[in-house]
Amino acid sequence: MSTTSYAGGGRAARYAGEGRIELSAQPATAPGPGQVQIRVAYCGICGTDLHILHGHMDHRVSAPQAIGHEMSGTVEAVGDGVTAVAAGDPVTVMPLDWCGDCPACRAGHGHICHNLDFVGIETTGAMQELWTVPESIVVPLPEGVSLRHAALVEPLAVAAHDVRRSRLVAGETALVIGGGPIGQLIALVARQTGARVILAEPNAVRRAFAAAHGATTVDPIAEDLAAVVQELTDGAGADVVFEVAGIAATALDATAHARTRGRVVIVAIHPQPVPIDLHRMFWRELELIGARVYEREDFERAIDLIASGAIPADELITETVPLAETQAAFAALEDARALKVLIDVQN
Amino acid sequence: MSTTSYAGGGRAARYAGEGRIELSAQPATAPGPGQVQIRVAYCGICGTDLHILHGHMDHRVSAPQAIGHEMSGTVEAVGDGVTAVAAGDPVTVMPLDWCGDCPACRAGHGHICHNLDFVGIETTGAMQELWTVPESIVVPLPEGVSLRHAALVEPLAVAAHDVRRSRLVAGETALVIGGGPIGQLIALVARQTGARVILAEPNAVRRAFAAAHGATTVDPIAEDLAAVVQELTDGAGADVVFEVAGIAATALDATAHARTRGRVVIVAIHPQPVPIDLHRMFWRELELIGARVYEREDFERAIDLIASGAIPADELITETVPLAETQAAFAALEDARALKVLIDVQN
Ligand SMILES: [Zn+2]
Ligand SMILES: [Zn+2]
Ligand SMILES: [Zn+2]
Ligand SMILES: [Zn+2]
Repeated sequence: MSTTSYAGGGRAARYAGEGRIELSAQPATAPGPGQVQIRVAYCGICGTDLHILHGHMDHRVSAPQAIGHEMSGTVEAVGDGVTAVAAGDPVTVMPLDWCGDCPACRAGHGHICHNLDFVGIETTGAMQELWTVPESIVVPLPEGVSLRHAALVEPLAVAAHDVRRSRLVAGETALVIGGGPIGQLIALVARQTGARVILAEPNAVRRAFAAAHGATTVDPIAEDLAAVVQELTDGAGADVVFEVAGIAATALDATAHARTRGRVVIVAIHPQPVPIDLHRMFWRELELIGARVYEREDFERAIDLIASGAIPADELITETVPLAETQAAFAALEDARALKVLIDVQN
Repeated sequence: MSTTSYAGGGRAARYAGEGRIELSAQPATAPGPGQVQIRVAYCGICGTDLHILHGHMDHRVSAPQAIGHEMSGTVEAVGDGVTAVAAGDPVTVMPLDWCGDCPACRAGHGHICHNLDFVGIETTGAMQELWTVPESIVVPLPEGVSLRHAALVEPLAVAAHDVRRSRLVAGETALVIGGGPIGQLIALVARQTGARVILAEPNAVRRAFAAAHGATTVDPIAEDLAAVVQELTDGAGADVVFEVAGIAATALDATAHARTRGRVVIVAIHPQPVPIDLHRMFWRELELIGARVYEREDFERAIDLIASGAIPADELITETVPLAETQAAFAALEDARALKVLIDVQN
């Protein structure tokens, strides 16, 4: 990829080094051939953005830099040769930029390209009024969709990808270990897939959210999760387990909750190798499945779920703040009660 | 299952407690309804039998007991209602006895039944002249097949199952880590599937065997296995990795050798949880797959491979000893040069 394909303009909230967001304003240049200039409406903040703010990803970010990759907006202008969208169209962006030439790309898995650039990390991001990106990563939204809701498409596509990788089907039981934003989205997509969902989460507010949206919830501190799963599945175990907690102990336990031939999807990031019960994997012929970001069809599924109202977007968005208060928005996200905090880039 | 479905007779080599094999002889009774009495021709010894001899499985074995489950023979007599085979037919046995009523059985995975009995461990085994088993586990052999070769069907079915679980297809590259008997059989089945095979094994005799049968071999002590795999796959990695060494370090490394979206099959038994690189699994969207014993179709595939001469059976059978020398046969298996040691139960 070429970072020259990306540009920004107008008011921006930029990461300016460890812990600091600075507000700035730059003139915008017209989109070049094959480029689309988007007037950003909303931009969500995710855990990765928090890591950037904390200075953990300075090797990938060029401060000062606008970040953000969970966005919605309207096409402002298009460059020569652009045919997929036109000015005025509602759009979002699938923020992956692959090389097209590595073994992963050649095998058709560009989304996990060996040389992948993540748009909004390695390039300028969406926390600015005008954002120019290549046509290839612009995804049209249906007319009439709420742009506020559409800022959830990217994280929802992560959940859709996790569920698709798990091969979950209607009538199966999914156990979601961890009820943070991604765990909740996985639970919602699993419910929409027709599965029964059990969600394990120690935080009562998060449990209440999941319970209100169709999950059977378990407090793994106060209750015996293994016993609950056994009881709810007539002793069989869960068809699919999503490990979203990111704790070594939950990764080790994940295999214990899966039924014979069940699938365990490792969603959380475990930077260090962690002990896995390979004997259980052998004994029950389990599968442990890695899942990372999303493919175009996951984006399309997420858009359908948002556009049809199948996902409780208004409840997931616990806060919306104007661009000038981006620093405060990051702080709000550290509260365990927050699910999704949006920046209103128009205000 | 009911152990009353199993019986033996004639001369037998019986496990008689830690380290001891005793020779005995008992009268045989006629097979009951639904039972098949087999005149055993050959019986192989596997790692599990060695564990039994060493006293590690006394909680599952009722000494003194004939053991053995890798067998071939000829039907001697059948009980009332038996239709699948008749006296004189060449047969082998798929030594699994499932309950039919647990969650695994109800889901169609009886081979990994939660209450599985392994025939020849929980029941009397094939190291005796006459062996009576239920009709349901008798597998007919084609006319004219060598009964000596057919004693390899059971371990070959394990390899066929491992390869089938890996979803290996022609044109892919399989890395087999560990060149003992099961690793060699997996390499042979993978070759017959049309895959390229790389086999990593420190023992030169085992490497030579694999090389003589179409594998590219690597000494992981003297060579950099990761570099060799990268070079042979143009930097992509192996499509499938079989971890057959049973060492924590090779389990950890297994994911490093797999390509993006590659599959890693854990064949070796790791009694304790071992560290697995979940970040690599996430980054490359790998799958870790558990595989245990076999299903009927794996037995059929193994029989086809033996009957067609696709497997170098004569070279795999490094020794054949008469029943009276069973104790010495066990000792021979401890030699790393041995691949498969057979007991000739007829002599
Ligand atoms: Zn994100
Ligand atoms: Zn690439
Ligand atoms: Zn065996
Ligand atoms: Zn069963």
